[in-house]
Amino acid sequence: MNKKKIINDPVYGFITIPTDLIFDLVEHRCFQRLRYIKQLGMTHLVYPGALHTRFHHALGALHLMGLAVETLRTKGVEVSAEEEEAVQIAILLHDIGHGPFSHALENTLVKGVSHEMISRLLMDRLNQEFNGKLEMAIEIFNDTYPRHFLHQLVSGQLDIDRLDYLNRDSFFTGVSEGVISFDRIIKMLNVRDDHIVVEEKGIYSVEKFLIARRLMYWQVYLHKTVVAAEMLLVKILERSRALALLGADLFATPALAHFLHKSVVKEAFLNEPNHLDAFISLDDTDILSAIKVWVNHSDFILSDLCARFIGRNLYRVEITNTPPPLDKAVEFKQLAIDKFGLIDEEEAGYYVFTDRIVNDAYKVGDENIRILFKNGEVQDITQSTDNLILVSLSKRVVKYILCVIKGL
Amino acid sequence: MNKKKIINDPVYGFITIPTDLIFDLVEHRCFQRLRYIKQLGMTHLVYPGALHTRFHHALGALHLMGLAVETLRTKGVEVSAEEEEAVQIAILLHDIGHGPFSHALENTLVKGVSHEMISRLLMDRLNQEFNGKLEMAIEIFNDTYPRHFLHQLVSGQLDIDRLDYLNRDSFFTGVSEGVISFDRIIKMLNVRDDHIVVEEKGIYSVEKFLIARRLMYWQVYLHKTVVAAEMLLVKILERSRALALLGADLFATPALAHFLHKSVVKEAFLNEPNHLDAFISLDDTDILSAIKVWVNHSDFILSDLCARFIGRNLYRVEITNTPPPLDKAVEFKQLAIDKFGLIDEEEAGYYVFTDRIVNDAYKVGDENIRILFKNGEVQDITQSTDNLILVSLSKRVVKYILCVIKGL
Amino acid sequence: MNKKKIINDPVYGFITIPTDLIFDLVEHRCFQRLRYIKQLGMTHLVYPGALHTRFHHALGALHLMGLAVETLRTKGVEVSAEEEEAVQIAILLHDIGHGPFSHALENTLVKGVSHEMISRLLMDRLNQEFNGKLEMAIEIFNDTYPRHFLHQLVSGQLDIDRLDYLNRDSFFTGVSEGVISFDRIIKMLNVRDDHIVVEEKGIYSVEKFLIARRLMYWQVYLHKTVVAAEMLLVKILERSRALALLGADLFATPALAHFLHKSVVKEAFLNEPNHLDAFISLDDTDILSAIKVWVNHSDFILSDLCARFIGRNLYRVEITNTPPPLDKAVEFKQLAIDKFGLIDEEEAGYYVFTDRIVNDAYKVGDENIRILFKNGEVQDITQSTDNLILVSLSKRVVKYILCVIKGL
Amino acid sequence: MNKKKIINDPVYGFITIPTDLIFDLVEHRCFQRLRYIKQLGMTHLVYPGALHTRFHHALGALHLMGLAVETLRTKGVEVSAEEEEAVQIAILLHDIGHGPFSHALENTLVKGVSHEMISRLLMDRLNQEFNGKLEMAIEIFNDTYPRHFLHQLVSGQLDIDRLDYLNRDSFFTGVSEGVISFDRIIKMLNVRDDHIVVEEKGIYSVEKFLIARRLMYWQVYLHKTVVAAEMLLVKILERSRALALLGADLFATPALAHFLHKSVVKEAFLNEPNHLDAFISLDDTDILSAIKVWVNHSDFILSDLCARFIGRNLYRVEITNTPPPLDKAVEFKQLAIDKFGLIDEEEAGYYVFTDRIVNDAYKVGDENIRILFKNGEVQDITQSTDNLILVSLSKRVVKYILCVIKGL
Repeated sequence: MNKKKIINDPVYGFITIPTDLIFDLVEHRCFQRLRYIKQLGMTHLVYPGALHTRFHHALGALHLMGLAVETLRTKGVEVSAEEEEAVQIAILLHDIGHGPFSHALENTLVKGVSHEMISRLLMDRLNQEFNGKLEMAIEIFNDTYPRHFLHQLVSGQLDIDRLDYLNRDSFFTGVSEGVISFDRIIKMLNVRDDHIVVEEKGIYSVEKFLIARRLMYWQVYLHKTVVAAEMLLVKILERSRALALLGADLFATPALAHFLHKSVVKEAFLNEPNHLDAFISLDDTDILSAIKVWVNHSDFILSDLCARFIGRNLYRVEITNTPPPLDKAVEFKQLAIDKFGLIDEEEAGYYVFTDRIVNDAYKVGDENIRILFKNGEVQDITQSTDNLILVSLSKRVVKYILCVIKGL
Repeated sequence: MNKKKIINDPVYGFITIPTDLIFDLVEHRCFQRLRYIKQLGMTHLVYPGALHTRFHHALGALHLMGLAVETLRTKGVEVSAEEEEAVQIAILLHDIGHGPFSHALENTLVKGVSHEMISRLLMDRLNQEFNGKLEMAIEIFNDTYPRHFLHQLVSGQLDIDRLDYLNRDSFFTGVSEGVISFDRIIKMLNVRDDHIVVEEKGIYSVEKFLIARRLMYWQVYLHKTVVAAEMLLVKILERSRALALLGADLFATPALAHFLHKSVVKEAFLNEPNHLDAFISLDDTDILSAIKVWVNHSDFILSDLCARFIGRNLYRVEITNTPPPLDKAVEFKQLAIDKFGLIDEEEAGYYVFTDRIVNDAYKVGDENIRILFKNGEVQDITQSTDNLILVSLSKRVVKYILCVIKGL
Repeated sequence: MNKKKIINDPVYGFITIPTDLIFDLVEHRCFQRLRYIKQLGMTHLVYPGALHTRFHHALGALHLMGLAVETLRTKGVEVSAEEEEAVQIAILLHDIGHGPFSHALENTLVKGVSHEMISRLLMDRLNQEFNGKLEMAIEIFNDTYPRHFLHQLVSGQLDIDRLDYLNRDSFFTGVSEGVISFDRIIKMLNVRDDHIVVEEKGIYSVEKFLIARRLMYWQVYLHKTVVAAEMLLVKILERSRALALLGADLFATPALAHFLHKSVVKEAFLNEPNHLDAFISLDDTDILSAIKVWVNHSDFILSDLCARFIGRNLYRVEITNTPPPLDKAVEFKQLAIDKFGLIDEEEAGYYVFTDRIVNDAYKVGDENIRILFKNGEVQDITQSTDNLILVSLSKRVVKYILCVIKGL
Repeated sequence: MNKKKIINDPVYGFITIPTDLIFDLVEHRCFQRLRYIKQLGMTHLVYPGALHTRFHHALGALHLMGLAVETLRTKGVEVSAEEEEAVQIAILLHDIGHGPFSHALENTLVKGVSHEMISRLLMDRLNQEFNGKLEMAIEIFNDTYPRHFLHQLVSGQLDIDRLDYLNRDSFFTGVSEGVISFDRIIKMLNVRDDHIVVEEKGIYSVEKFLIARRLMYWQVYLHKTVVAAEMLLVKILERSRALALLGADLFATPALAHFLHKSVVKEAFLNEPNHLDAFISLDDTDILSAIKVWVNHSDFILSDLCARFIGRNLYRVEITNTPPPLDKAVEFKQLAIDKFGLIDEEEAGYYVFTDRIVNDAYKVGDENIRILFKNGEVQDITQSTDNLILVSLSKRVVKYILCVIKGL
């Protein structure tokens, strides 16, 4: 069987599956499930094209990793065939632990278990199935492989993950502000002292990359309507779970029911394989099909929230630079209690709440992006350009949000 | 409330919602459900970007219709504001009756009821809700409005529907063979004798459009793997329905259960509103979430077909120009009976069957595409160009398929 | 004759000539000559696709102006048909006074006469020819028309000129860093107090626009090789002129000869029409065809510089943040004198010299970009966003260059 | 010096110069002159973006050749490093013999000498200069190298030359009808019996390629205005040459003067190197700058034709399927004689004449495009598809043109 498959990708034209092992990983059920998990959750409510999946993103990152290794080799950086396959597997599987709407639902379905942790669990499971062939990929992913720059390609401030998702998210949303010169940046990569560096000529492309990331945050990832929809999703799951733990009857696929009716804690998740089994059969359709049914549930709050979700009658989101005054939320909660006949402030918390959002375009000190100058010197990018833009970008932006259900 | 919404579309840049009524129709639940019905069903198995929805297509067609009306007006064709809104509504709603995977499941969930019929039912329902404001749109859709060319824009051999879907399907699959000059074609439209005509200068663009359509058929719409996946979907639904009618227990959302457990015939569908109610809460997630659960069903055939669907272990499809010899299918069926321990040929029919596919790039006599020459003459396009290409395109292509489950 | 011409443009798809008067202006010889004047001079040495002309840019700006007026009207800003045509003419002709390689040769061919001044002279001439029909366009261009926002569309910090050239220059160079959301920005325009404002939702697009402009400066407009080529062009013209004024024989078209053999000062240029007559028959081909011939000129310096130009054996350009030490240039000049057997420092000045380049991404106080907030407030953009990026952009960047001929 | 240059190309993103020898060839004056020879001559009069040069096309073809070799290697076709460089040089230099507007002026400046012949002369000259390093490239170009498929990549019915120019011409004209899936076609290439074949899956892409070529002919290459402009160019050069041979004084660069004042025949051109020397310093600017000057020439015909060229007051072109009746041209000639006071029919021939244009989308028997089927069989493409389109394409299209100066 020919495993050198070529896949059409509107973003890059064609993606080639480079090796038989990678082909088999792509075909694996654990990876195929990513076909049904959207990369950007409910963002399609605002940008109707944003339906691309974690499956597609992982393939795109695989493709770019191939280009990056090719470039490094032409610069004299030796990368063995085994390392090439390992770093490609590491990027292919870097997000395999994501669940449905994980941006929103992480910490809701399973408390205290991050998607990175689940990615690691799944990689270990796959490694066993494939007789240890993923060993090096896992070391690269965990940064225990001696050559650190390979890990940086998978996870860093200018990693292949970000190059693909910025590009892909821009493409499918149609928000051209996020378009980046991924090919130029990749062609400018090099390695010095076991760290990824960008050659001087690529400095403006990197600057542009950081800005693009910042703009995509405000225009897409933290768009008010997107935030409102995903917050509502969280509240719906919280409510359904509260009801389920009290023994209420709830339509759900078996996999979803598993997490609604049980409080799975981190330790259990790590030690009892049945939880992971249930997790990997979850995808967006389990959540969405349930919400449609819950519209008719007897619990007013659940049914009301679900009807709002379907009818896109979401929260009104206020974003401010300082925390909203405490009494503002309290007042709105009282309004909610009165209007919907709720019992207490806890119930009102489904309709009114505050939260915080954070945007680090570039984190100083956190595996800085390094520039390689023509004279051989290497410097952090914030010390390399002619003005304050990058200094600005390295300021963390914190915003506060107040969500109040519409019509209150 | 501002209803002049602007929507980002990676295909056209921006789409503007032109009127308040259209805004309200877009917001309506019946239309919003199209967000969860993919335009190309299971095509994403082959082209991972092909996740765009009927919602997005309908908005795109709305946009193009606006451009078409604008063009016609600059040529002196009078179109009143009311007609403009009506023809835009007609195109917006032309596909509203589609159910999930309707390319495959039409005639499976509800026998004898086409999506056009359901579109009409829904338009009538919306017309009542909106106090008769959709009257003219419905007349245009049904071709009972006096000005025939408006109907042709909605449904004809060179209609706005096709212009958008060819373009959009090309964009999201990444199959550049289907890219068409929609803007050039639209700019060349005119009206003569109440028929849409294309000005002479646009003749090559139309030729290209017809060829693009043909190529998209073979490369996308009738791609073997797509055909195999959709055929499997049909067989899964047929099997689940057969079991349900025998009283078996089957996981399903209430809406899906409605159609599995009842044999709704056309007459009932038209007369009893509860069937349409159930229908409009169906979308792709009902089907996909059920199939994942049915993998564990006690019926061997259902569980086996569903496992194959999930694992993309589909039919092997043979496409031939003449019908396959009868005994070939019979032999394969016997093989299936032996291998899977099936009871009879009927059961074997889930694993082995034949079908027919047809591709008319251009149908002579069926509202021909007319060319307007500089001298004022109007001719059918097949009589207008310098070679035989269009004659070739007007030959119906019929192919025969034999589907045999993989591994037989 | 049909003057509603449609022109293919790879950047925008199609450009429509909106009125008969504009059609006649486009057809006019003064405008048609822009077909042979490249927008980016010698930039094609670095970016081989950058061959687009001032003709193409002017048409593109015409197109965007149409979209801008359309948008403003939908927001309730009244623009009469006459004003629409006038502002479109103003943008169409805003660069009509450019000569060949004017970025480099302004002030070389004719001392003290800017291209804006020549644009004005030509508009006046055209206005006479067209019996005063350009009156309002000229007023808008000169900012003497009462409605100031129309002038801002033609010339401001976020004008239609910049929107087109950033977009077009990015497209033809292939430098994706410069791609901007021109359509989004235009859709966000509005008018308050007779000033163009950008609605709040467009703020990130404007930020991106300013950054794109900055990046295009460093990556394209001030690229070292481009600077070196254009500086060499200046030196070649200076040398040929010096020789011509001394009576040397020089191959040149009559129009070029006019400016080589005469010292036309500003006053003469404004008062004696024959200078303008000669000027408008100059284009890139006059310069380039002459340089090829001058390679064989008997003057060593001229022939050497021309050979270097043809062979792309240009200056080495050093860019620094502070002026280069004075003795550095002096030393290099001495080297040049010795190596090429030059007479004096003046002659060495053709081989070694210093200059200054300036980049204002955004000028505070100079017709600031104003943001219109949802609450109706209007603010300068630098006071409107959440971080220091725009503050950074409003710092003028000055760099110093030292040019030394290669091989010294 | 680093010769691994990377060049921005808006069509493919980036082009890498693969070897030092190729870098030196690109830098060579003979190749650099192609920077000033437009690929599509006067096509920019209709499509203003069509200013791309033979230089750019040759680099693009170099890039695609690299991809093609890479693909063939992954299929097990051995191509040595030396052969790879040779076939890349062959495609890089395949058009090096083109002169300015050679589509039009071939056979006008030098009678009986084709651009292929000049390409061969220049390759030989370069081979000498580079000490025989171009030997293999020349053999491939001349089809004397034992491995025939390498020649087919350079020159055949589906060669790299055509893949690049269709793509590039579409890109810069903005005529999307010509867009082809060059990457898909290249990925489908293979070799059987020393012939290039296309794998079965690529058949529709090839069909699309042939149609795209046909459409580009009618929409771009043989567009009436383009034909009119290039015919006028021919007539201008013919007239200026006739005057020059009679001893008239004519402004011209020395290189152009060389060919105006001498009748260089093929034999002389091949044997006396000074003709080739003059030829390689010719480019578009020699022609265009001269025409502007000739507007003021004392010969009425020359000055009139040049004024028409500048003012785009071109021929009216009638295209017909059968030759125009003889007396029609005669009548028009008489009109011209009367109107312009011409002496005889020969002079009238500058204003009125007939010609023939031919378009072979696909030539049967001329190195047919071969399809490789899954079962290993190889067939000519016209015998491989399901309908008559390719049969149609293999019919030669001949059209007849009658050119009559406008205003007659």
